[in-house]
Amino acid sequence: MYKIALIGAGNVAWHLSRALEMVGHRITEVHSRQIANAQLLVKQLYDATPTQQLNLLDTEADLVLIAVPDKAISEVVEKLQVPADVVVAHTSGTQSIDLLAKFGDKAAVFYPLQTFTKTKQVDFTQVPICIEAKSEAALDILGDIATSLSEEVYQLTSAQRQVLHLSAVVACNFANHLWAISKEILDQADMDFDLLHPLIVETTEKALQMPPKDAQTGPAKRGDKEVIQKHLELLKEMPHYQKIYQLLTESIVSMHQA
Amino acid sequence: MYKIALIGAGNVAWHLSRALEMVGHRITEVHSRQIANAQLLVKQLYDATPTQQLNLLDTEADLVLIAVPDKAISEVVEKLQVPADVVVAHTSGTQSIDLLAKFGDKAAVFYPLQTFTKTKQVDFTQVPICIEAKSEAALDILGDIATSLSEEVYQLTSAQRQVLHLSAVVACNFANHLWAISKEILDQADMDFDLLHPLIVETTEKALQMPPKDAQTGPAKRGDKEVIQKHLELLKEMPHYQKIYQLLTESIVSMHQA
Repeated sequence: MYKIALIGAGNVAWHLSRALEMVGHRITEVHSRQIANAQLLVKQLYDATPTQQLNLLDTEADLVLIAVPDKAISEVVEKLQVPADVVVAHTSGTQSIDLLAKFGDKAAVFYPLQTFTKTKQVDFTQVPICIEAKSEAALDILGDIATSLSEEVYQLTSAQRQVLHLSAVVACNFANHLWAISKEILDQADMDFDLLHPLIVETTEKALQMPPKDAQTGPAKRGDKEVIQKHLELLKEMPHYQKIYQLLTESIVSMHQA
Repeated sequence: MYKIALIGAGNVAWHLSRALEMVGHRITEVHSRQIANAQLLVKQLYDATPTQQLNLLDTEADLVLIAVPDKAISEVVEKLQVPADVVVAHTSGTQSIDLLAKFGDKAAVFYPLQTFTKTKQVDFTQVPICIEAKSEAALDILGDIATSLSEEVYQLTSAQRQVLHLSAVVACNFANHLWAISKEILDQADMDFDLLHPLIVETTEKALQMPPKDAQTGPAKRGDKEVIQKHLELLKEMPHYQKIYQLLTESIVSMHQA
């Protein structure tokens, strides 16, 4: 059991803190600029203290987790005062560990690779957790905590983690946006997005069973210019989506020519 | 039980014919320009005859299913000779029913909305089947056959079916391509695409539970310019993917500003 001080009360803080308590760790305090957010999160926890300040209330905490938006990390680091032996980790996919240089060999990263929405429960045992630390001692603590939460723990460098985060944005945020576009196209023709559910499920299953490149189907893959032309015409009132269609079609063609 | 003559021996013909026989219909003959393909498919069927010709061998068939690539349909229609009372349906998402005008009120469409790969079994009970016909009599036969295969049968016009097909290309072919790009990015940094599997599964589940627009997360949604800038830099050696990143990011921003 580790004692963990949490900075932040957004989606990541919310999911992570409850999952950490569920496997036996203790959140001692929740720091948030918006005290109301800290108070709200604390209600979900065993015995944490909400606070707006950035000095550590419990000086015997083992770990400070900085789970705030990327652009807020620097300011937190600047103001944060912790005893010399406390490990300090941020949870960002993109930011380097060097942002925490102030904490010397106690600097670390604890990055859960998942998309969090407050209203949807997440099974942490399957969430890849990427850790990095400036010392073996810090790495041991993070490794303990990560493996207590998840079966998938990876030690990645900051450079690797950045590439992983980029690939996650492409694979997930962008795929989700295509589904939103798809729904918009169907809405305009008075059809229901649910019609596509079975196809989306099958497409996802296939891409997890074989390399997605090998699972590619569709008019671009087949080089079916007539269908592509018809689709571009159907999108003529939605020029931005027409441009996306064109670019992704070209990209599929060029990936499969190579 | 209906007697069905099949034209084509590709992925759609392959999956559809076996599914039709599994629910009790009979494929009487398989037509293919490549006789070897017809012979191969016939081996999987109960008692069908392979043929290269386009005249109907069994003049008592109830339905001729044209499951060939879009651009081959016109040629098939031109050469195909069938008795006046046989329904003729194509299986294309994009082509109008009017392509089958030669068959008068026996013209029809039978479009299963799914992605087919020979090596992967498909559960047809969950595949939406979109039907259209020029007469009530033809519609009855197609409706019987469709509901014997699937719980999801929809009567759509050619115009609706075209929009549905477009939205399926965007939602599935393009999403799959993003996963292929994502894998390429990870490959170059010696990381495994499997790392993204839990995130892809979660993203898919979310988009099926709520409107995908509401499920959107990521730097573009948050307007996190610093992260976006870092990602564009990481993609500088892959200019085509950089362009895709830029365009989809702009599109997310504009969808969520509106």
